[in-house]
Amino acid sequence: MDYDVIVIGGGPGGYLAAERLAHAGRKVLLAEKAYLGGTCLNVGCIPTKTLLAGAKEYVHARDSAKFGIVAENVTYDWAVMQAWKNEVVEKNRNAVAFAEKKLGVEVVTQEAKLLGPGKVEIAGVVYQAENIIIATGSVPVMPPIPGAKDNPAVIDSTGALGLPSVPKRLCVIGGGVIGVEFASLFASLGSTVEVVEMLDEIVPFMDKDMAPVLRRAMKSVKFSLGCKVEKIEGGTVCYRTKEGAEAKAEADVVLMAVGRKPAVEGWGAKEAGLDYTGKGVVVDQRLRTNLPQVWAIGDVTGKSLLAHAAYRMADVAAADILSGGKAAEAGNFMRYDSIPWAVYGMPEAAGIGLTQQEAAKRGIKTISSTLPLRVSGRFVAENGFAAPGSVKLIAEEGTKKILGIHIVGAYASEIIWGASAVLEEELTVEDLRQLVFPHPTVSEVIREAAWALEI
Amino acid sequence: MDYDVIVIGGGPGGYLAAERLAHAGRKVLLAEKAYLGGTCLNVGCIPTKTLLAGAKEYVHARDSAKFGIVAENVTYDWAVMQAWKNEVVEKNRNAVAFAEKKLGVEVVTQEAKLLGPGKVEIAGVVYQAENIIIATGSVPVMPPIPGAKDNPAVIDSTGALGLPSVPKRLCVIGGGVIGVEFASLFASLGSTVEVVEMLDEIVPFMDKDMAPVLRRAMKSVKFSLGCKVEKIEGGTVCYRTKEGAEAKAEADVVLMAVGRKPAVEGWGAKEAGLDYTGKGVVVDQRLRTNLPQVWAIGDVTGKSLLAHAAYRMADVAAADILSGGKAAEAGNFMRYDSIPWAVYGMPEAAGIGLTQQEAAKRGIKTISSTLPLRVSGRFVAENGFAAPGSVKLIAEEGTKKILGIHIVGAYASEIIWGASAVLEEELTVEDLRQLVFPHPTVSEVIREAAWALEI
Repeated sequence: MDYDVIVIGGGPGGYLAAERLAHAGRKVLLAEKAYLGGTCLNVGCIPTKTLLAGAKEYVHARDSAKFGIVAENVTYDWAVMQAWKNEVVEKNRNAVAFAEKKLGVEVVTQEAKLLGPGKVEIAGVVYQAENIIIATGSVPVMPPIPGAKDNPAVIDSTGALGLPSVPKRLCVIGGGVIGVEFASLFASLGSTVEVVEMLDEIVPFMDKDMAPVLRRAMKSVKFSLGCKVEKIEGGTVCYRTKEGAEAKAEADVVLMAVGRKPAVEGWGAKEAGLDYTGKGVVVDQRLRTNLPQVWAIGDVTGKSLLAHAAYRMADVAAADILSGGKAAEAGNFMRYDSIPWAVYGMPEAAGIGLTQQEAAKRGIKTISSTLPLRVSGRFVAENGFAAPGSVKLIAEEGTKKILGIHIVGAYASEIIWGASAVLEEELTVEDLRQLVFPHPTVSEVIREAAWALEI
Repeated sequence: MDYDVIVIGGGPGGYLAAERLAHAGRKVLLAEKAYLGGTCLNVGCIPTKTLLAGAKEYVHARDSAKFGIVAENVTYDWAVMQAWKNEVVEKNRNAVAFAEKKLGVEVVTQEAKLLGPGKVEIAGVVYQAENIIIATGSVPVMPPIPGAKDNPAVIDSTGALGLPSVPKRLCVIGGGVIGVEFASLFASLGSTVEVVEMLDEIVPFMDKDMAPVLRRAMKSVKFSLGCKVEKIEGGTVCYRTKEGAEAKAEADVVLMAVGRKPAVEGWGAKEAGLDYTGKGVVVDQRLRTNLPQVWAIGDVTGKSLLAHAAYRMADVAAADILSGGKAAEAGNFMRYDSIPWAVYGMPEAAGIGLTQQEAAKRGIKTISSTLPLRVSGRFVAENGFAAPGSVKLIAEEGTKKILGIHIVGAYASEIIWGASAVLEEELTVEDLRQLVFPHPTVSEVIREAAWALEI
């Protein structure tokens, strides 16, 4: 046996699983074909949030006169923003490499191929491992829209991160998280932005009361909802509106952001006999695949395409390997209803658990309350009385158990982890009312929403 | 009987208790001698945070070149900052008045005097009430330092909020929360600031590993620790250093911020036979005083001088009144170890539960981990690699129960509520490790700290 564990893919799921197992004394090989940190660190969360951080500073510097800030000729230097983004990515990538090395994980920058249980081929050599973890991630979906392929005006999110300049006019195809974040970024930097979305609302997994709050808050972005793109000609996106009319978005750059899909191809899944579909590698609550001693984690499972879901999956798979299944018996297995999500636009949005629509679909009777963030003194002090933002709380009618917490507005992404605790520990409305929230904060609107529920 | 409940004092504790009881159909009179919202809303949390919000925007606009922001002649307009502060305070005060009115609370702007159980005198008239809630708050401590009294250069926090201009040189006497927040505010606006603190460290209730992180992060403030102020001459603060040497802080304005004390005088406590000391009105877990049907909540109890502690006390007292004591039997009583605190300087700090020193004092064996915030990609993206900040996690050695969570750095105040859930629900290190935190956030450093504990 060459290794205790071979991990295929060095993104958040893969590198964290390698760390956990190496920390526990296992001999681990981590094979990453491109860059440690995967999509998230290199061309996803981290570079996007770094550019957004700059954009937020710019907007604040530009728009803070009402708070007494005086500044002249406020602008931004896209090249400096890019350089800072690159520095953050590079240093974070180095930090991952350092952590692997320190823990004794052997990292190879090579494609790896699953041959079957216990067998992985790397650069023509077959390695034996007691356990294998698949963490190959996801790839952007490129829909077969006529005129999209080989069109220099059409880019994906990776291209958007490295644009040589801020486009004058940007059309974003797709109003999901990625589309909304880039729309927010470039609109705040002065681009004229139109988002063309096939569905009737942006960010489809958001509660139907909350997505419009986010959409309307992005005042400078034009949203064309219920519109189907038919073709792209240069920078012109031709689409059909909900009513059936033909319409066009004229842009200099077209960002294709219709989603991502599990990377189930190119690494031997089929040949090895792994059970998978286009929606991902099939796994159980312990993240075991159909092949013995082969686990799959992260985006490739299709269960949740979020870096922190991958982290959690890494922990579950590592614990499963280290305990021989006993961790799951003790309750350490995947629970997808208490994984939060966040959108880092201006404003932010975040949520966890069920939307009211999802609860209804599952036949759960719910009660809910929605409060504007302006009931928070801190929110008002920092954003003004007219600033948009809301909290929505959803509880089960009978048990009063909290089922969902949804936020649009400042600090949403940093507030939401507490909601993980609320859902994981199955708190009721009464329990939530008894929690003490610091004053004055935006977070305490959650507490007020708990009191606004009639129970 | 004139009222079901008379509440004396219209601060956060008083007005919220009135709302809860009125919402439940009780006939409530709320007597406030000055302004609805009390210290917190009028001369405490809200105006301070509003000015700090402006100062933060100013610092960001000034210092964001590395993130690509270009701005010329960045400065601030203190008069506009003041006007915005006043607007926020006034509108929030109106919102409280509106809420009371909507719920049918009768509000009188009068001093009220407790005569005994069931009896309150207001403007010469004696009113009968089945229940009385004392919520008279706290007042600033003015130590008898020679030269402090009637010295126009010496102000308290209320004076600091309304200064006609930003002082060139400020000396803050006292390095507690109030002192630190004002030091941070004025230092960021360009004042030369010296904080003179009698104890060896600032913010004495902070963990001894964390307070220095906060102090050192406030680079432009001079902290003179272990120094005893002996007299004030004009704007000159004369003190004796730890080593016994004489020293002086030359300032234009001297801010006295040595703390606040429960307002136990001036409203009849003694005459009514209420049990109290200089440290506050004596209450039990249900906030009952020694007098039948008389409760005390908020700062006046001396249990915790925080607005959100007062909110919680309002809830507990109201539930006790409404349930006739049954709420406490069901677990709804005061628990002071899971009340978070926050300091809103630059950077922020927040915490909950025990410090390692407090745990040791109670004879509890602990394990702990401390991580710098720069392990968070988001923190780095927004603040740079050299920015200060830490998370410290404290757990009980035997049970692995989380006892304390302490943060210095960005978003601390908005992150900490989740720690309330962790402590209230008595989560262990393993439970905390299984919570999913969104990535990339600063909050997830808490998760990493849980993994950094060797259990």
